Amino acid sequence: MTVLNDLVAALADGSVRVVDLTAPLHAGTPILTLPEPFGQTVPFQLQEISRYDDRGPAWYWNNISTGEHTGTHFDAPIHWVTGRTGPDVSQVPARRLIAPAVVIDHAAEAAADPDFLLEVEHVKAWEAEHGSLLAGGWLLYRTGWDAYGDDAEAYANGGRTPGISAECARWLAEEAPIQGVGVETVGTDAGGAPGFDPPFPCHSYLLGHDKYGLTQLRNLAQLPPTGAVVLAGPLPIVTGSGSPCRVLALVEG
Amino acid sequence: MTVLNDLVAALADGSVRVVDLTAPLHAGTPILTLPEPFGQTVPFQLQEISRYDDRGPAWYWNNISTGEHTGTHFDAPIHWVTGRTGPDVSQVPARRLIAPAVVIDHAAEAAADPDFLLEVEHVKAWEAEHGSLLAGGWLLYRTGWDAYGDDAEAYANGGRTPGISAECARWLAEEAPIQGVGVETVGTDAGGAPGFDPPFPCHSYLLGHDKYGLTQLRNLAQLPPTGAVVLAGPLPIVTGSGSPCRVLALVEG
Repeated sequence: MTVLNDLVAALADGSVRVVDLTAPLHAGTPILTLPEPFGQTVPFQLQEISRYDDRGPAWYWNNISTGEHTGTHFDAPIHWVTGRTGPDVSQVPARRLIAPAVVIDHAAEAAADPDFLLEVEHVKAWEAEHGSLLAGGWLLYRTGWDAYGDDAEAYANGGRTPGISAECARWLAEEAPIQGVGVETVGTDAGGAPGFDPPFPCHSYLLGHDKYGLTQLRNLAQLPPTGAVVLAGPLPIVTGSGSPCRVLALVEG
Repeated sequence: MTVLNDLVAALADGSVRVVDLTAPLHAGTPILTLPEPFGQTVPFQLQEISRYDDRGPAWYWNNISTGEHTGTHFDAPIHWVTGRTGPDVSQVPARRLIAPAVVIDHAAEAAADPDFLLEVEHVKAWEAEHGSLLAGGWLLYRTGWDAYGDDAEAYANGGRTPGISAECARWLAEEAPIQGVGVETVGTDAGGAPGFDPPFPCHSYLLGHDKYGLTQLRNLAQLPPTGAVVLAGPLPIVTGSGSPCRVLALVEG
C-alpha cells in the first residue's frame, strides 16, 4: 500500500496538482455543424425540472439535451465506419481511462497559419528532444485553439482550424504506440479534413485501429511535455459512439 | 517526478488496478420517480443522428436526453435548498474529484431488512476497526443494492431501500471530516427518507455543508475497506445541480 498512499499524500501537500482539461458545458458550447443533408447534433441545453418551488420545494435539478460529441468529449472506435466492429464507448476498458500523456505544442505555428497540420517529422523532432511516444499513452496536441472556445464563430473560423495531416494520422494509428490523440479543436480532424485523402484521416485511421479521440480540451499549456497522467471518464453509454467527458490531468511539481 | 511515474508503472504491471464503479447508461437505467405534483426527470435516451448511412456515410453518433441525476451521478451542493448558495457542479474544485475512499459494508443487514439505516454507532464501530474516516475523503456505503441495478422495479422495491439515519447524516455532515457519501441506491437518501425529520437528511445536511453525493455506484464489493482512491468526474455543467458521472477507483494489490 504505497503507490496510492503516496499519491494521496502528494495531492494533499500540493506536490501533485489536478489540472482541469475540460471546457464548461452550456448552451453556447461550440458544436460541429455539417453540410446538408447530413444529420446534426443538438446543442447542449438544460430544461429546469424544479428550483426550490412548487415543482420541488427543497431541490433544484434539470433535464439535459446534448449530443454524444458535444463539448469536451471522447470518441470511441465505433464512431467511425472503420471502427464499426470495435468497442462502443461503454466497452472501452476502464484501464485505458487513466493513462500517461505527452504534449506537443504547435500553438505558435497555428496562430500564424490556421490550416497548420502536424506532420510525422514534427512528432519525430519532438521525440528527439523528449523521448519516444508512450505505449498506451495519449498524444495531446496543443494548437492554442482553446482560447476561442467561448466564441463559437472564432472557434469554427469558417472551417479553417489546425489539425493533423493524413500521413501523420496514419502513422499515429499504425506505427505509434499511443492509445489516442487529444486536441483543442471541435474534433480531432482539421477543418480542411473533409477534403483530405482519406477524408477525416484522424477519425478514419485512429478509430479504425482501436484508438481513441479526445476533443475540445483546455489548459494544455499548463501541462509539461512529458510526465502528466490523464483521467478521461466518458459516460458508459451502452451502444454509444462517444460521450461528453470530464478530462483531468495530474501534474507533478 | 516519482509519484506519477510510480503510478503509471503500477498501472502497467497490474499492481494498481482500475475498478469501474459506474452503472452502464441506457434507456432502462433506473430513475427516481416523485409523487405528484413534483417535476420529473426524463429517462436516459439516445436518438440516432446517423449510422454509416445517408445521414452520415462514414460516422455513427447519437443525441442524448437525460437528467442531471440519472444513473451513476454526482450531487452538487446547489441541488438542495440548504446548499443553494453553494457551488454548482461546474464550480466543484477539480482537486476534490480525486480523493481517497473508505467502504463501510452493511450488505448483509440490508439483505435482511431493506429499511436498514446506517447509524453513527455503525460508523464508530467501523472506525474502531479500520481507523478514522479520512479528511477530504469519500465514505462509500455498501448495501448490495447494485445487484438490482438492471431491474428498475426491484431497485425501487416499492420505496423500501436502505440508507442513512437522520442523526447519522447530520453527524457525517457536521462532525466527520469526509467530503461526501457514495451509495449504491438511486439517491443518497433511504427510500423512507421523505418521512424522516428532516426529510431527505443526507441531501439536506451534506449538501448544506458543502459536501457531495455519489449515487448508483457498482462494484463496491471489489474495494478494500481502506486504501482505494476514487476518481469522480461529473460534467462541468454551468449552473448544473449535478451530473451523470463516470466513477472509477484505483485499488492496490
